[in-house]
Amino acid sequence: MIKPPELLSKKLGLTFNNPEWFVLALTHRSMGAKNNERLEFLGDSILGFVIAEALFEKFPQASEGVLSRLRASLVNQESLADLARHHHIGDYLILGSGELKSGGYRRASILSDALEAIMGAIIQDQGIENCKTWIVQLFTERLAGLRLDNWQKDPKTRLQEYMQARQFDVPGYTLISEEGLPHEKTFKVECSIVLFDQKFIGTGVSRKKAEQHAAELMLKKIAKESK
Amino acid sequence: MIKPPELLSKKLGLTFNNPEWFVLALTHRSMGAKNNERLEFLGDSILGFVIAEALFEKFPQASEGVLSRLRASLVNQESLADLARHHHIGDYLILGSGELKSGGYRRASILSDALEAIMGAIIQDQGIENCKTWIVQLFTERLAGLRLDNWQKDPKTRLQEYMQARQFDVPGYTLISEEGLPHEKTFKVECSIVLFDQKFIGTGVSRKKAEQHAAELMLKKIAKESK
Repeated sequence: MIKPPELLSKKLGLTFNNPEWFVLALTHRSMGAKNNERLEFLGDSILGFVIAEALFEKFPQASEGVLSRLRASLVNQESLADLARHHHIGDYLILGSGELKSGGYRRASILSDALEAIMGAIIQDQGIENCKTWIVQLFTERLAGLRLDNWQKDPKTRLQEYMQARQFDVPGYTLISEEGLPHEKTFKVECSIVLFDQKFIGTGVSRKKAEQHAAELMLKKIAKESK
Repeated sequence: MIKPPELLSKKLGLTFNNPEWFVLALTHRSMGAKNNERLEFLGDSILGFVIAEALFEKFPQASEGVLSRLRASLVNQESLADLARHHHIGDYLILGSGELKSGGYRRASILSDALEAIMGAIIQDQGIENCKTWIVQLFTERLAGLRLDNWQKDPKTRLQEYMQARQFDVPGYTLISEEGLPHEKTFKVECSIVLFDQKFIGTGVSRKKAEQHAAELMLKKIAKESK
């Protein structure tokens, strides 16, 4: 049984001038053409900005790389789905019968999309400032819980320092491939440590990001082996 | 010779309360630790939102997929670098001597980053609303020039329709690989048309996006062959 949207908006501290926006935000595409996908597009973009700004202010010394990693740790499907679950948003989703039967109200992607769509609905109904305030409130605990220590150094730097501290050779990075259209390329870079006989291939939208990803995989392997 | 920043801010229609923000936005990382990277992070995120909102309002019938593609066509390194060149931002960049010698003021990535950093500087100096107004003005012509026709249909749909119109078999899509950490996966999908003896591998952050990319590559090949 789907619970009434008013109950959820009240719990979320929201009062809509046009409650239709909120209902639309809860409506999955399995219900037909009138669904929350456009609002999700809008919500996703305001969320990215609001968290960027909050981090920019909270950590005046953090580099762009650190800010990016912090944001990725707060804004991703799993983290948004967790927030949605915390607020029982699944109980209020308006799903087509197929999605309903297959448990769509529990699916991370559907929950995360609905939460972003709610943000889009707030902008449409009440403008940016109110939406910003609501998002910051939603993330208050998570923002407060962030500590810079673990994010200061990127994986490549941490791996390099790990190796140097042990007087081992530093890892090598080799570009394996570069594919895709100019503005949506995918790079593959291999990180190898001869001494350990280990190789990991990282992927990313730039060579740098692929290197970081490869370094991250290597660090995970090392952490696992050294437990 | 680097031109004075005041000249540029005036040309861009900007008056800063603290001109230091604007100077910082023009300062490349080759100048040292005090550079425009943090502002670029902030500017990139507000830009994504402002264009999302403008498109959301301009095209009330467009699907989320169409809005995403429209935004990607407006907000990408090349398009931003073009805008930066149009406003001669390169003449005002504050670069380290190495970047200066190697022509950094002409490089697309540096120009595009500086333009985003200017947006970040406006937020810091004057708040969201002024920044939004400035961005919308910057993109006025490009926004006005957008027509839905070419964006309504995604590559996969266009390819399918192309094949069906000729009574050919529709193309097949096969997932080749799925790599990376949970929140930054890369998918590879192969699009194949047996009749043409053609195969293309697309990459993307989701299976859907990789399919679209593969379809796009196939469409390009077909367009080339049928000229």
